[in-house]
Amino acid sequence: MSHSAAASPLSRDASTPLAQQLALRFAERIQQRLLLPGARLPSVRECARHHGVSPYTVVAAYDQLLASGMLEARKQRGFFVRDLRDARPHAKQPAPSPAGNAPIDASALIRGMFQADARHAPGLGTLPGDWLDLPMLQSAMRRVVSQSEEPDQLALQYGEPGGDPRLRAALARRLEDIGVHAAPEQIVSTVGATHALDLITRSLLSPGDAVLVDDPGWAIEYARLSQAGMRLLPVPRGQQGPDLDVMARLIEEHRPRMYVTVSVLHNPTGHSLSLASAHQILKLAEAADLMIVEDDTYAFLAPNHAPRLSALDGLKRTLYVSGFSKILTPAWRVGYVAASADKVHQLTELKLLSTLTTSPMMDRAVAICLEQGQLRRHAERVITRLDAARQRVVRLAEEAGCEFVTPPQGLFGWLEVGMDTERLAQRMLDAGWLIAPGLLFSPTRRAGTLMRINFATSQDARFWRLLQQLRERR
Amino acid sequence: MSHSAAASPLSRDASTPLAQQLALRFAERIQQRLLLPGARLPSVRECARHHGVSPYTVVAAYDQLLASGMLEARKQRGFFVRDLRDARPHAKQPAPSPAGNAPIDASALIRGMFQADARHAPGLGTLPGDWLDLPMLQSAMRRVVSQSEEPDQLALQYGEPGGDPRLRAALARRLEDIGVHAAPEQIVSTVGATHALDLITRSLLSPGDAVLVDDPGWAIEYARLSQAGMRLLPVPRGQQGPDLDVMARLIEEHRPRMYVTVSVLHNPTGHSLSLASAHQILKLAEAADLMIVEDDTYAFLAPNHAPRLSALDGLKRTLYVSGFSKILTPAWRVGYVAASADKVHQLTELKLLSTLTTSPMMDRAVAICLEQGQLRRHAERVITRLDAARQRVVRLAEEAGCEFVTPPQGLFGWLEVGMDTERLAQRMLDAGWLIAPGLLFSPTRRAGTLMRINFATSQDARFWRLLQQLRERR
Repeated sequence: MSHSAAASPLSRDASTPLAQQLALRFAERIQQRLLLPGARLPSVRECARHHGVSPYTVVAAYDQLLASGMLEARKQRGFFVRDLRDARPHAKQPAPSPAGNAPIDASALIRGMFQADARHAPGLGTLPGDWLDLPMLQSAMRRVVSQSEEPDQLALQYGEPGGDPRLRAALARRLEDIGVHAAPEQIVSTVGATHALDLITRSLLSPGDAVLVDDPGWAIEYARLSQAGMRLLPVPRGQQGPDLDVMARLIEEHRPRMYVTVSVLHNPTGHSLSLASAHQILKLAEAADLMIVEDDTYAFLAPNHAPRLSALDGLKRTLYVSGFSKILTPAWRVGYVAASADKVHQLTELKLLSTLTTSPMMDRAVAICLEQGQLRRHAERVITRLDAARQRVVRLAEEAGCEFVTPPQGLFGWLEVGMDTERLAQRMLDAGWLIAPGLLFSPTRRAGTLMRINFATSQDARFWRLLQQLRERR
Repeated sequence: MSHSAAASPLSRDASTPLAQQLALRFAERIQQRLLLPGARLPSVRECARHHGVSPYTVVAAYDQLLASGMLEARKQRGFFVRDLRDARPHAKQPAPSPAGNAPIDASALIRGMFQADARHAPGLGTLPGDWLDLPMLQSAMRRVVSQSEEPDQLALQYGEPGGDPRLRAALARRLEDIGVHAAPEQIVSTVGATHALDLITRSLLSPGDAVLVDDPGWAIEYARLSQAGMRLLPVPRGQQGPDLDVMARLIEEHRPRMYVTVSVLHNPTGHSLSLASAHQILKLAEAADLMIVEDDTYAFLAPNHAPRLSALDGLKRTLYVSGFSKILTPAWRVGYVAASADKVHQLTELKLLSTLTTSPMMDRAVAICLEQGQLRRHAERVITRLDAARQRVVRLAEEAGCEFVTPPQGLFGWLEVGMDTERLAQRMLDAGWLIAPGLLFSPTRRAGTLMRINFATSQDARFWRLLQQLRERR
């Protein structure tokens, strides 16, 4: 059960005693490094209230963790995560950090974004599981497993290098709906959109190349580009979209090869390009012979008429990337790239070296959801539900004294909270809430007073009350 | 239906006329570049005999292809694949090649290894589909899709970065059986063994590093390492295993960082390390502080007691890689690495950047097959069947005048055929047989007189008769 963060409700019907359940959850958080060495645990009273158990249960849980050596008690100060490295020989000495104010481990926090219990994760990166259409997913998978769907091809072979032909045909039709014209041969399926972006970086760029990125943007994209040896050139993105003057200057000075951007429902600001700025960006790109990677991860949460760079450009210098983790399920790991035939050829050759193929079964399952219009109808329902959630959250956030930097749209809000969000994240974690502090969206991992919230998972008024208290106490 | 190579039987019950079916199959082969521009098609009589149709049907099919512009007729010489690039403006001029002796496109051939119809592919890289246990696969997938297997965790979430915990626990038990001791935390699941090898290259090596590889070995492994900027140092591998003198000299001269090897049932020679050479290799590696990547892709086709480098070394400097494409199915794309905890940590961080996670559903499906002993029993049946096939093929090959370079074992035989196998591959393709010529196993893509055969798919006596004829005609 290590998927659920320590904050998910304890089960009273379970055969495991409550104290043990609680101890286990803290142990998991420590192991996942969501609670780092030196971090202070919530007070017994606070923890009891939060989990709806008696203080005796909390004391028993903390005792178990003390006995196992994961915690240490400090007189008058409370319980702290022990630094086990101190006990090991040859261990590197960690940088000293003031007790009770342990730094956030960004990489653990990122993992948390994907795995936390949605009820206690205003910073979650996806729709909560109960917003997804499990019966639709199960029915598609059952069809893929059954005889009716060519089991010798789907169940017993590697599948085609470019991906399932039925999926590529369905994607070509889907792309028509948003104005992007691509033949099935111009599409290659990938292990989620992440894999698509990875293949693009590795096959179309060389180490040392300069790449324009949105700032703020998503930490994993920055990390991938940096890991591959690229130089990041951040382009500020605010209420008006990317700062085109800065972009022009960076192009002039650094001769970048590529611009990677979320054009529609940008993560974290929620901003979508206007037709005018899309046109300007393309003009800049043409003049500088720049490739553009359009990451349309949130495609199904936006209207079809939202302008896509790939639609304007006709996939000449644009590569269109999308996936299904934010609308169908993250568990299937299906994404894709649409681009010019020669770029798709290069990407397919590298896909062969990186994973040989994608699973023909998962590809086909997505095709089935697309072909029958089920995905479209599901997306319509999600959009309606998200609109209602967003209205509620905007009200709660404003009551708590926070301000939206960009007009609230789509899944994410980008919020000025008026206090350092790295410290806020640690405090919130102590109280059982996973948030997404600004440093996760900064190319330089700079902390700040901005944070991202997920409208679907931030509807609990208790979270906003606590945020207000922490702001006032500051 | 483009999975089936042009050689699969035509369907007489189908609503599509035979001539059209035949034309379509040649068109597919041309599109997949298994038939390159300039290649000669089989004569009408030869083609009619091979497909069991009348010469009129073949003429009608060739006429359709002529009309579509894919073929051209040359007087007295027959039908040839047209080079469509000649017609396009700005096209690069291809290197001229003597007509009727077009070079093989290795990358198309490699794709063919994974996709061809097993009945006509003595060069296939996997077990034929009808050797796999489809009911077992379907039953495992049905369980994963059903409510019984925690659908909120398997169907609605990304899954843990390291992979499904149930899979990692089952793999730890499996590894015990072959003498490799790894805790579940020392295992990370991947998108097939290919992804495992890719993550290792990218996270533990740097461009410019020298890497020892087996020669012969597998083209995709060479291509991956080269693409990542590594310098390949081929170590000859023959009947006695890797040439340790050459290895010692290469270590001395080039200071490589890593040795990547298939220790058990090596592809293509079928050779398995003796205990003595395993020990010697590890001594060399220890002295030179070399990492060893043990690619145990064929693990389930070998006895548990075959010595693994990782078992001797205790995963100190070894990384153990394996997968399930060669025993369960290639369609699930599940592989893994077992290594020291710190290496697994690094690999997991890069996995996050490359695919975020692997599908928790596919991970769990493999866990189910492992947990209940079904996979072990299936592997036992496959080994027995493979032993019988190998006996038959060894007889056929020797009757055709071929010689095994290494004692026949496992799935692949490495065969001296006494004629250039690149030319042989083209001739065989013309006649509808997909073979694996020596150049696919040479670090320098050198052609030669050796080829790999798959014992499971080389049992058709017609193939060996044709080989003998071609040898004699030479």
